[in-house]
Amino acid sequence: MSDRLTHLDERGRAHMVDIGEKAVTHRVCVARCEVRMAAETLAKITEGQVTKGDVLATARIAGIQAAKRAAEWIPLAHPLPIDAVRVDLTPAPAGSSGGGAALQVEATVETHWRTGVEMEALVAATAAGLTVYDMCKAVDRGMTLESVRLVEKRGGKSGTWRRPGEPA
Amino acid sequence: MSDRLTHLDERGRAHMVDIGEKAVTHRVCVARCEVRMAAETLAKITEGQVTKGDVLATARIAGIQAAKRAAEWIPLAHPLPIDAVRVDLTPAPAGSSGGGAALQVEATVETHWRTGVEMEALVAATAAGLTVYDMCKAVDRGMTLESVRLVEKRGGKSGTWRRPGEPA
Amino acid sequence: MSDRLTHLDERGRAHMVDIGEKAVTHRVCVARCEVRMAAETLAKITEGQVTKGDVLATARIAGIQAAKRAAEWIPLAHPLPIDAVRVDLTPAPAGSSGGGAALQVEATVETHWRTGVEMEALVAATAAGLTVYDMCKAVDRGMTLESVRLVEKRGGKSGTWRRPGEPA
Amino acid sequence: MSDRLTHLDERGRAHMVDIGEKAVTHRVCVARCEVRMAAETLAKITEGQVTKGDVLATARIAGIQAAKRAAEWIPLAHPLPIDAVRVDLTPAPAGSSGGGAALQVEATVETHWRTGVEMEALVAATAAGLTVYDMCKAVDRGMTLESVRLVEKRGGKSGTWRRPGEPA
Amino acid sequence: MSDRLTHLDERGRAHMVDIGEKAVTHRVCVARCEVRMAAETLAKITEGQVTKGDVLATARIAGIQAAKRAAEWIPLAHPLPIDAVRVDLTPAPAGSSGGGAALQVEATVETHWRTGVEMEALVAATAAGLTVYDMCKAVDRGMTLESVRLVEKRGGKSGTWRRPGEPA
Amino acid sequence: MSDRLTHLDERGRAHMVDIGEKAVTHRVCVARCEVRMAAETLAKITEGQVTKGDVLATARIAGIQAAKRAAEWIPLAHPLPIDAVRVDLTPAPAGSSGGGAALQVEATVETHWRTGVEMEALVAATAAGLTVYDMCKAVDRGMTLESVRLVEKRGGKSGTWRRPGEPA
Repeated sequence: MSDRLTHLDERGRAHMVDIGEKAVTHRVCVARCEVRMAAETLAKITEGQVTKGDVLATARIAGIQAAKRAAEWIPLAHPLPIDAVRVDLTPAPAGSSGGGAALQVEATVETHWRTGVEMEALVAATAAGLTVYDMCKAVDRGMTLESVRLVEKRGGKSGTWRRPGEPA
Repeated sequence: MSDRLTHLDERGRAHMVDIGEKAVTHRVCVARCEVRMAAETLAKITEGQVTKGDVLATARIAGIQAAKRAAEWIPLAHPLPIDAVRVDLTPAPAGSSGGGAALQVEATVETHWRTGVEMEALVAATAAGLTVYDMCKAVDRGMTLESVRLVEKRGGKSGTWRRPGEPA
Repeated sequence: MSDRLTHLDERGRAHMVDIGEKAVTHRVCVARCEVRMAAETLAKITEGQVTKGDVLATARIAGIQAAKRAAEWIPLAHPLPIDAVRVDLTPAPAGSSGGGAALQVEATVETHWRTGVEMEALVAATAAGLTVYDMCKAVDRGMTLESVRLVEKRGGKSGTWRRPGEPA
Repeated sequence: MSDRLTHLDERGRAHMVDIGEKAVTHRVCVARCEVRMAAETLAKITEGQVTKGDVLATARIAGIQAAKRAAEWIPLAHPLPIDAVRVDLTPAPAGSSGGGAALQVEATVETHWRTGVEMEALVAATAAGLTVYDMCKAVDRGMTLESVRLVEKRGGKSGTWRRPGEPA
Repeated sequence: MSDRLTHLDERGRAHMVDIGEKAVTHRVCVARCEVRMAAETLAKITEGQVTKGDVLATARIAGIQAAKRAAEWIPLAHPLPIDAVRVDLTPAPAGSSGGGAALQVEATVETHWRTGVEMEALVAATAAGLTVYDMCKAVDRGMTLESVRLVEKRGGKSGTWRRPGEPA
Repeated sequence: MSDRLTHLDERGRAHMVDIGEKAVTHRVCVARCEVRMAAETLAKITEGQVTKGDVLATARIAGIQAAKRAAEWIPLAHPLPIDAVRVDLTPAPAGSSGGGAALQVEATVETHWRTGVEMEALVAATAAGLTVYDMCKAVDRGMTLESVRLVEKRGGKSGTWRRPGEPA
C-alpha cells in the first residue's frame, strides 16, 4: 500500500490520478453492506413472490445503474468500461450486523481496464441499499446501512486482496 | 407510520408514489454516517491546511452534487427542487463508530416541496463518505462507512422526528 | 390545435417555448406502445413468477427513470417536477398490434405544472419497451415496438383529449 | 440465437451480462422507425429550407446524443465507446407505414467493442422520432412512431444479420 | 452587492446557499460571448443554407440543453425549473471582439423561481460557443471564446442590472 | 489542417465523425482561460487558507467532472475514457487578460484513444472558470471569462501543436 494520498498533488490539490501507464488487465471488486431493519420490515420484503420481486429487483437495477455511473458520483473516479455487474440481496446471517434483522447486499463488478473498480462496487452496493431504504421508509424510518466495505479486489499490480475475517 | 410498502401497488409492482395531493411545505432532513479508518489515515486527512482543504472540500462537493441528483440514484425518488444543502465532515467523537478513528459526515437538505428529502440527505452523506474512501483508498483499503442513517426529519404531515439517542 | 410549429421561432430556429405565463394545473398524460414478439418469447417472459418479476420489473423501472429525465432525451422539452409515474406491462389483446404475440406498455405521468407531460409519458413507454427488447434480444432479435402513441391528455388550457378508437 | 434470456441469471434475477471474454471487433447496427403524421404536418416540416433545417437538425442531434447515453436509458446495457453515429430522417416511401404520410428515421451506430450496438441504434432512432413528435405535437397530437426495429447487425460472433424484407 | 462570498460559510467551507426564504418571481438573464475565428471559417459556417442550418442549429441545441442542466456543471448552482431558453448566433459586429471575424452568441433564460438564472445563461452561451469550436476545429484550431459575460439580469430583490456599455 | 467541416456530411447534415480507423495513441490537450475580476474579488479568493481552499477546490472539481462528461455538453463529441485530468487556477500574470486582476485556469487532459481531447480540456477550463464566477457573483457580477483557448495538442496523426505566443 502507498503511504500518501495519491489523489492529491504535491501541494495538496485534488487531481485525477494518471492511469495512462497502467496495464489493461482483468479486474474484479466485490463490496458489501447490510441494511439493518425491523424484523417486520424484512418479512414484508421477503414474503410473497410478487412483492419480493419488485423490492429486490428495483434495488438490483439501482445498483447496476449506479455502478455504470460511479464516475459521476465520485469526483475523482475514472470513467471506465464495465464488463459485468451483479448485485445480490439476501437475508443477512443472524447477528451479522450487530444483531437484528438485515438484508445483505453484495455487488460484484468486473472490467478489463487500467484501474480497479472499487468505487463501482461500493457505489453499486450503496445505491441498492439506499433503494431498499427508500421503498421501505414509510414503514421503518429507522433502517440503517451498516458497514459499507470492500471485501475483495482482484487484478492489477497489487494482486488479490480479501478483507480479513469476511466469509466468501 | 404506514404499515405497507407505499412504493408497491396492490399487486406488488413498483411505481412512483403520487404526491400530487400533498402540501408544499418547508421540509428538512439530516443524515449521518461515519467513515471508519486507521488513525494514520485520519491524521493524513486532517493534518496540514492545504491537504485538509482538498480532501474535505472534494467530499463536500460530491455530497452536494449527489443531493441534487438523488432521483437518478434512487429509482422511485421524486425529482424535486432543493433550497439548500450543507455537508459537514468532522472527526467523529471517540468511540462513536465502534471504536477507532473516524470522520463523521452530516448532510442537511432543505426544500419547499410536496415530499421529504430523506433520500437527498442520505445520498449526500453517502457520496461524501465514499469520496473520502476513494481519495484515501491507496493508503487504507479497509476503511468502512458505518451506520448510514436518517437522524432528523422536519416538515410535512408527520411532523418532526428525531432518531432516539442521537446527539444534536 | 395550433397551426404552426411552436418550437420554431419566426425565422425557423429552434427554441424552448416560453411557458412562464401558463397556469400551474394538474396535468396527466397516458402513452402506449406494443412490443411485438414471437409467442415463445412472450411465454418466456410471462411463465414462472421469478423470471416474470425481473423482466417486467426492470422495464417498469426503466420507464419510470426515463420519465424523470425526459428533458435530457428530448432537446426542447422543459424540465419539470413529476408527481407520479406508473408503467404497466400486460399481454396485449389478441390482434392489437397487427397480429402475433405482444406486450402492451402503458405509461401514466402526472404533474402540477405549467406544461403537459406528453413527452414524459412517451419516453417512459418507449424506454420500458426497449428494455424488454434488450433483455430478450438474444432469443428474438426481430422484436419491434409498434405504435408508440399518446392516448390521453388531461389538464391545461386545451382540456381533455382521448385518442379516437383507443380502449380505456 | 440463444434460447434463454441471457440478462437473467439461473434464478431469474436481472444482471449485466459478462462480456469480458468476448472479442473486441468492429460492430455496426442499423435501426429504423417511421413517424406517421398528417400530410400537412410533413409539409410543414419539409417545406422551406430554414424550418426544415431546424426540425430535422434537432432530431438528428437528439438521436446522436441519446446513442451516446443508451446505457442510461436501458438498465442492463453496457456503457461502451462509440466510433460513429449517423441519424437520417427522410420522407418515408409511400405506404411504408400502413398508409399516410411519414418520416423515416434511420440510425447507424458503429463501435470497436466487445458487444453489439443494437440498443444504441434503437435508442437513437427512437429519440429522434420522439423529438419530431415533440416539435410538431402542437399541430398534430395524433402522430405515432411505427415499427421501431433493428434492420441490420454486423460484426461479433453471430456475424451479419439483416431483417428479412427490409430495403437496403 | 454583497461584500462576502455567499457560497462559503463563516469558516470558508463551500455550501449551497439557502434560497428557501426568497420570493418566487419572474427572473430573466442574458449572457453573451464571441467566438473569434478566421474569416474563412465564418464564411464556411454562414455560406449556404443547409450547412448554416446544421452548425448553428447544433450549437443552439447544445446551449438549450446545457441551460437545463447547469446545476450539473456548476457544483453549487440550484436545480431550477426553466420557463424558456433562447440561443441566438449571429455574425458579431465588426471589431466587437478585438478585431477579426466572430460569431456572437447570446443566450436568454427565464424562470419563475427563488433564485436567478445567471449560471444557466452563461452555461448556455458557453456550450453553444464551444460546440461551434468543436464543429470547426478541423479547419481552424486557433478559434477562441472571448468575453463570456452576463449582460442583463432582471427580477429578484436586486432588480434590473445591465452591463455598462453593452448594446441592447 | 482540413479545409472542410468534418462534422457535416456532404449535404451539410451534422453527424458524429467516424473514428473507427484512427489509431489508439497517447493524446494530451491543454486549454486555458482567464477569469477577469475586480482586484478586491481576487483578494477575497486568495486571502486566507481556508477560503482559498474551497473556492479553488470547488472550481477544480467542477473542471475535472466536466471533462469526464464533455460528450454530454458537446453534441458531436465522442465519449472517451480519460486517463488523467489536472485543473490549475493561479493568479494571472499582470496584464495577461487586457489589464486588471484575473485568475488563470489551465486544464490538462490525457487519454489513450482514437481521437483528441480538445473538447474535454476546453470544457474543463470553462466549467472551472464559470464555477469561480458562480461563487463570487454576489460580490462582482461583472466578472468575465476571457480567451478560452486550446494552447497545446499532442499525439495523433497531426502531431504536436502549440498556440503561437503562448507561454509554457
